Amino acid sequence: MKIYGDLQSGNCYKIKLLCSLLDIKHEWIHVDILAGDTSSAAFLQKNPVGKIPLLELADGRYLSESNAILNFLAAGSELLPADSFDLAKVQQWQFFEQYSHEPYIAVARFIAKYLGLPEERRAEYQAKQSGGHKALAVMEKQLSVTPYLTGNTLTTADISLYGYTHVAHEGGFDLRDYPSVMAWLDRVQAHKKYIGMA
Amino acid sequence: MKIYGDLQSGNCYKIKLLCSLLDIKHEWIHVDILAGDTSSAAFLQKNPVGKIPLLELADGRYLSESNAILNFLAAGSELLPADSFDLAKVQQWQFFEQYSHEPYIAVARFIAKYLGLPEERRAEYQAKQSGGHKALAVMEKQLSVTPYLTGNTLTTADISLYGYTHVAHEGGFDLRDYPSVMAWLDRVQAHKKYIGMA
Ligand SMILES: N[C@@H](CCC(=O)N[C@@H](CS)C(=O)NCC(=O)O)C(=O)O
Ligand SMILES: N[C@@H](CCC(=O)N[C@@H](CS)C(=O)NCC(=O)O)C(=O)O
Repeated sequence: MKIYGDLQSGNCYKIKLLCSLLDIKHEWIHVDILAGDTSSAAFLQKNPVGKIPLLELADGRYLSESNAILNFLAAGSELLPADSFDLAKVQQWQFFEQYSHEPYIAVARFIAKYLGLPEERRAEYQAKQSGGHKALAVMEKQLSVTPYLTGNTLTTADISLYGYTHVAHEGGFDLRDYPSVMAWLDRVQAHKKYIGMA
Repeated sequence: MKIYGDLQSGNCYKIKLLCSLLDIKHEWIHVDILAGDTSSAAFLQKNPVGKIPLLELADGRYLSESNAILNFLAAGSELLPADSFDLAKVQQWQFFEQYSHEPYIAVARFIAKYLGLPEERRAEYQAKQSGGHKALAVMEKQLSVTPYLTGNTLTTADISLYGYTHVAHEGGFDLRDYPSVMAWLDRVQAHKKYIGMA
């Protein structure tokens, strides 16, 4: 099994973290977005969307989208509930992540950390703040009631949201306003086979 | 079972279409976003994200996120594959929809159709075009090989993508450039229990 990714990317790190938690052996193939790797013809043949992470199975089949990869790799493990409503709740949080969290928090972080907050993207960076805080407030609400996003145990939903939440400060988000989120970050990090970002 | 939604919204229509295909009885509760319904305290208590569609089960539990609702309602039916890789492929397309398709095509449509393409949002509308075409090209590539997005049969992935693709022209996207996408739209519409948008 091969995983194409870049460990600086939260979407890719999600997969790395899951593989560590579940002891999943894999070959990690580094992809350099800034060097144009994801827009090469060879890569687009593997994933026409031109994004990482990307999973390649031993039989040559491909799977893209970080959260789909997480759920595929976690199938049958304790990280994915069997009950159909619980499973739907995992997905609910993952779609929330892709739609209402990542586009604000990951993008603000990218502009600040990787581009150095250049003048011409300052307005966009500012515009990302309110959406990011809205997402963090939604998480805070849930995590003040349950230890993990979908209940009492860690699931792939937590891994999905953990990816960019634990580096949200790099996008200008002060997590001290979200004490239950901070306690949850600690809870995730306390797992035996936890590994940090690159 | 209650569904809170607005049939003008593609995200809500997805659920209506699935319920028709699978004969799922439900009570539809109209929610008026422009009147502020989704930001009322009563609604935020049901869904802290403040968005529709929202599913309410008979026992009072709630589920949000259109694609999570689709997969929950379709569990065990012919619209959701049992094989774990096929199931992951359904999710891959659904995350693609939320991340790389809807934010371009649905938003361009909203600006053009509902706001009447006002001067101050014209630049944003223009900026949405290239992302939308990129997403349509990815769909075209797959649909020139298989009749449905994940293979030979209709799944919830098709319903997810159908929602805004079939009204993409209202966002300025000319689907005649995507013949396989157009043939797929016809294929979906030919299903016996198909219903159109409001
Ligand atoms: N929805 C995708 C998003 C992946 C994504 O945006 N990947 C970025 C790196 S974090 C990428 O590959 N960007 C290259 C590009 O868009 O050209 C997922 O969850 O996997
Ligand atoms: N990711 C959500 C998106 C839902 C969404 O954006 N709903 C819109 C209507 S199409 C809404 O409720 N907007 C109200 C708001 O954001 O205030 C899903 O797939 O259900």
